Amino acid sequence: MSAVSGQQVSLALDANGGDHGIDVTLPAALEALSQEPELNITLVGVVDDIEDRVDFASHPRLKWVAAESVLAADAGPVAAIRKGAGSGTGWAIQMVADKAADACVSAGNTAALVALGVKRLGVLPGLRRPALMSDIPCEGGMTSVLDLGANLDVDARQLMQFAIMGVEARTLQGGPPPRVGLLNVGHEEGKGHAVVQEAHGLLRELPLNYVGFIEGHDIYAGKADVAVCDGFAGNLLLKSSEGLARMLFNELKDVFRHDFRSRCAGLLAKPALRSMLEQLDPGKHNGAPLLGLAGVVVKSHGSADATAMVHAIREAMREAQRQVPDRIKEAIQRYGAGEST
Amino acid sequence: MSAVSGQQVSLALDANGGDHGIDVTLPAALEALSQEPELNITLVGVVDDIEDRVDFASHPRLKWVAAESVLAADAGPVAAIRKGAGSGTGWAIQMVADKAADACVSAGNTAALVALGVKRLGVLPGLRRPALMSDIPCEGGMTSVLDLGANLDVDARQLMQFAIMGVEARTLQGGPPPRVGLLNVGHEEGKGHAVVQEAHGLLRELPLNYVGFIEGHDIYAGKADVAVCDGFAGNLLLKSSEGLARMLFNELKDVFRHDFRSRCAGLLAKPALRSMLEQLDPGKHNGAPLLGLAGVVVKSHGSADATAMVHAIREAMREAQRQVPDRIKEAIQRYGAGEST
Repeated sequence: MSAVSGQQVSLALDANGGDHGIDVTLPAALEALSQEPELNITLVGVVDDIEDRVDFASHPRLKWVAAESVLAADAGPVAAIRKGAGSGTGWAIQMVADKAADACVSAGNTAALVALGVKRLGVLPGLRRPALMSDIPCEGGMTSVLDLGANLDVDARQLMQFAIMGVEARTLQGGPPPRVGLLNVGHEEGKGHAVVQEAHGLLRELPLNYVGFIEGHDIYAGKADVAVCDGFAGNLLLKSSEGLARMLFNELKDVFRHDFRSRCAGLLAKPALRSMLEQLDPGKHNGAPLLGLAGVVVKSHGSADATAMVHAIREAMREAQRQVPDRIKEAIQRYGAGEST
Repeated sequence: MSAVSGQQVSLALDANGGDHGIDVTLPAALEALSQEPELNITLVGVVDDIEDRVDFASHPRLKWVAAESVLAADAGPVAAIRKGAGSGTGWAIQMVADKAADACVSAGNTAALVALGVKRLGVLPGLRRPALMSDIPCEGGMTSVLDLGANLDVDARQLMQFAIMGVEARTLQGGPPPRVGLLNVGHEEGKGHAVVQEAHGLLRELPLNYVGFIEGHDIYAGKADVAVCDGFAGNLLLKSSEGLARMLFNELKDVFRHDFRSRCAGLLAKPALRSMLEQLDPGKHNGAPLLGLAGVVVKSHGSADATAMVHAIREAMREAQRQVPDRIKEAIQRYGAGEST
């Protein structure tokens, strides 16, 4: 974790993870390397014909490490710990633990990634568990939401820790101090269950730009830069939003196939529509950092295409350059927000 | 609760509830009466100039009952119980309890409605709490989701009860036995926290058309007719979906204002687009039944316009005609799903 902005970053990329494996990870690696002159990538996985797929001699910043096994896409935490060490996912994380890489990216199973990350890298001092964060498009920008599924049951202290981690990760995007909102079923004091009530009290005491309770629609209205919730609610929120966006885009396509008049309209509007869809599709903003580990681990969507995977790789690179884990460690100590304090 | 399909239904409508009060409830009542010859409506609330607003002599199926007070929009359960009895919300529910009405509709505060409903009507035998259900548009139809905020902390037995209530309410829409899905963070066995795991076991034992775990995106893909979750997650899901839909529609409007070419496209596509937006906007499908009470109570969106309010009124009317509370009571007993069994 010695890299800073403008310096070289070496990144380990799980070659087999995700729905498309090497068919996406290799083109994404090559594209990311062409975009980022400071980047070095080590692909790690099991791909028998890797030498036929790419000429490493002509890509000096791309390396290959053969793993022993492929972790099943549905591997849970137990299987991940038992069998994951020799997989591309396990090796990529181990390279970060060994300081052989500054960051790693995997499109593998989230539960496996969390289990291996906790086991190999460890959780930062004072934290109980890592949290998964993702940026989702909103009016005027992006909202960073966490946790998205790494923690299904949380207590108030964990929600406070998520807020601190989210702020530290978000700060690397620049701008004024991020506004933090706590997701709840209403804005009013006294709303929500005991855990959010207690977290609300804790967050008000911290020197963060805390804007209080926010509701689901406030995320898309851009009322907060960092939105905090438990992983069960966050996961449903993210996946339902992706599903709704997909449905609306499909319906929109149907509208422009409806009749001759609509087909003409579709042709005329195509460039503007395409740019809107690119901007707003939550699935396009790929690369969810697993915050709270002693190293940079970024989770890619399993269905990511090469463009989306490049986005995740660049996210991991930026986090390594800004040393996000060190910042989180320092902030948790500074705010006395650790578990033992 | 003696009404059946094709018979008269008398409905109590909270005149003051919602953002617009009588400016929405009165036009909605008149429109619903013109659409539904079997419907009778009693408006209940505090409106000083009600006689100037409508000529009751020319609307024989519309009645007015003056309430004593208006319940604050932010009234919590405690305030609702203490001060709500004399409000339009409280009276409308009391009319159902007294069999003076077959159903009631309110756009007031959900927490107040739940508290007053539980206090005045009571919960059906074997149930612990009511649950709020809403239909949201999906590919090929609608998914009924519950709970949407009446129960922030639930146990497995409650989730099972939500499934049964949802099926009974959904069955009134006709068609094959509704497919029930349990919302979770993954499809695989073993995913999710202890409560959904246990509920999964309970639901598998019931003679329902249970399709197992579903994820957020499955709602919009139409993978289930009834989707069950706790009220905290359901509330975030619904409100974030509404927020996302609103943002996308706004962006779409901007696309068609972008330049001359896009404006032409917008004019051409307008009819097809409008019909799509009407169909898909989750906010348009207004009328969330509060299931599990010994009487029909339907919650309208606070921001509902008259068209949306008519939708809620017709939902309440159908539930009264199909005697949904009696069906739920019977189903909970038949499945041995009550609290005391």
